[in-house]
Amino acid sequence: MKRTEISSLGEFAFIDKLTQDIQLKNKSSILGIGDDASVIQQEKNSQTVLTTDLFLEGIHFDLVYTPLKHLGYKCVVATIADIYAMNALPEQLTVSIGLSARFSLEDIEELYEGIKLASSIYGVDIIGGDTTASQTGLLISMSCLGRVRPEELCLRSGAKATDLICCTGDLGAAYMGLALLEREKNVFAGETERFEPDFARKEYILERQLKPELKLSVLEGLKEKGIKPTSMIDISDGLASELLHICKSSKVGVRIYEERLPIDYETAQMAEELGLNITTVALNGGDDYEFLFTIPLGLMDKAKEIDGLRFIGHITEESLGASLVTRDGTEISLKAQGWQ
Amino acid sequence: MKRTEISSLGEFAFIDKLTQDIQLKNKSSILGIGDDASVIQQEKNSQTVLTTDLFLEGIHFDLVYTPLKHLGYKCVVATIADIYAMNALPEQLTVSIGLSARFSLEDIEELYEGIKLASSIYGVDIIGGDTTASQTGLLISMSCLGRVRPEELCLRSGAKATDLICCTGDLGAAYMGLALLEREKNVFAGETERFEPDFARKEYILERQLKPELKLSVLEGLKEKGIKPTSMIDISDGLASELLHICKSSKVGVRIYEERLPIDYETAQMAEELGLNITTVALNGGDDYEFLFTIPLGLMDKAKEIDGLRFIGHITEESLGASLVTRDGTEISLKAQGWQ
Repeated sequence: MKRTEISSLGEFAFIDKLTQDIQLKNKSSILGIGDDASVIQQEKNSQTVLTTDLFLEGIHFDLVYTPLKHLGYKCVVATIADIYAMNALPEQLTVSIGLSARFSLEDIEELYEGIKLASSIYGVDIIGGDTTASQTGLLISMSCLGRVRPEELCLRSGAKATDLICCTGDLGAAYMGLALLEREKNVFAGETERFEPDFARKEYILERQLKPELKLSVLEGLKEKGIKPTSMIDISDGLASELLHICKSSKVGVRIYEERLPIDYETAQMAEELGLNITTVALNGGDDYEFLFTIPLGLMDKAKEIDGLRFIGHITEESLGASLVTRDGTEISLKAQGWQ
Repeated sequence: MKRTEISSLGEFAFIDKLTQDIQLKNKSSILGIGDDASVIQQEKNSQTVLTTDLFLEGIHFDLVYTPLKHLGYKCVVATIADIYAMNALPEQLTVSIGLSARFSLEDIEELYEGIKLASSIYGVDIIGGDTTASQTGLLISMSCLGRVRPEELCLRSGAKATDLICCTGDLGAAYMGLALLEREKNVFAGETERFEPDFARKEYILERQLKPELKLSVLEGLKEKGIKPTSMIDISDGLASELLHICKSSKVGVRIYEERLPIDYETAQMAEELGLNITTVALNGGDDYEFLFTIPLGLMDKAKEIDGLRFIGHITEESLGASLVTRDGTEISLKAQGWQ
């Protein structure tokens, strides 16, 4: 495979090469890459929503089993998920990268292919960024701007006792995909062969880890039915963590039901293979990028008609705390995750 | 000195501790830290301006001689300089950090002190960010949102032949401050004593490197006199690089005059001590954070009245290229910088 040293291009030619085919599609994107800053025109009656995320090699991703194109795609999805979780639409993205001499132009072009693909699919314009040398591997920093009508905005703080707790998709799959990749990496460690383990019948959990997609159809379903969630968050650090964020911001408690946790067959099978408790996997596995939201109890019948929306519990008074109700009726306190 | 391990707090308590006293002051800052994203309300007839910057340990800063508080301050100044260079006002800032176990809570609090101080002085609200573990030292990523009336916006692309080239302050000082710090670091390398070299009569160049300030009074002067620059950029990679950016974007050439380059006495003295050509230092030293802009020739007399504004040359037709005219009348082509 061809390898072009980035040092042979210099910073500015390198940036030009990566960004030359980027086109702005949103009418709010007035000026993109190429000046000190980018320019955005907001519409009347709309607010701007801003989020930012860091992705570091060795912490958030392992390039032994993560193709660079997939990595670029996933970083975009993870970043814009925060904008959708405000019930806003993402429109502009900045992409900053730090990279060591280990990476060639072709590597970073592959990374950008994934970034551009996700941006195009989700309708986001790449309008800026920063590139720099790094002493130690690859790091990616993305910021995303979105737009929302103030009356549509969903915070973490609006959940009320008796509200239903809903989520999209299923949980724990990405974490099981990661566990599988880590296991195979260890099996192959030390071998000189290429890393090409057998992943048959594990395609779903691998895809959830390597190329997540957002369940926008559920959010669209809510809009079509005129249901505005009372609170919303995206599930990136595990369901338990996100529920506790809603509890803290909304000053409420939650009860979720073990039997209602949505779990895919491959996820359950992988957990069993690895000797892990599947409920723990669903509660604390990261990288789900599903949406977690609450709606008033009275809207249950309407919400039921939305494909892919799951009811997993309900909001309680704050004094009741945050618990999982197991299949046998025991209540177990939910614990926060987050890095140490 | 007290050392609290961040691992003893966990991610969420750590973030709470750093951000608990942050208050939003700009009326456009609707919602700050604590949700999936922050919310900004733009005024009518204004556009949003967005910039993002990465700062990596070992590449952009050396903690042997950079106090963390100064580092935080400088990163804010470097980031918002891009917003001012669009002739916009910075209003919202996100701060993301990656940090290894080497850093204690007290270290990062010191960093944040500098970030908060600069934000307060320049009137910017800290509205969000991301924190993560890092395998390798400290990294900081900042994004800044600003506001501008469309008719006030200054791009790199509006310079016209015969326009005057102006800059603020003086050049090369920060680079000489860096060179001094590097020299002293090498002198002290291997010694077990604390790093406390003698910096007498080098205060100015050290301050320019460690705690830069933006010459906003010149930008305000331009506004008061009704002078809108035809192009503007901030000088972060060295004057020569920035002039070439204006040439490329505006499709023009430039002539700047060696005898007109603004250079402080300490800068010149340090260059001599180190055996460096002072003109090269002024052209290619980085981290100046001065503003470079062009104005129509006819506004020269008006612009002359603005304190701290220097005329250093003029814009030419593109075919004439970009050159420095030396004291003896020789023309030397300007070369681009940028990392390799």
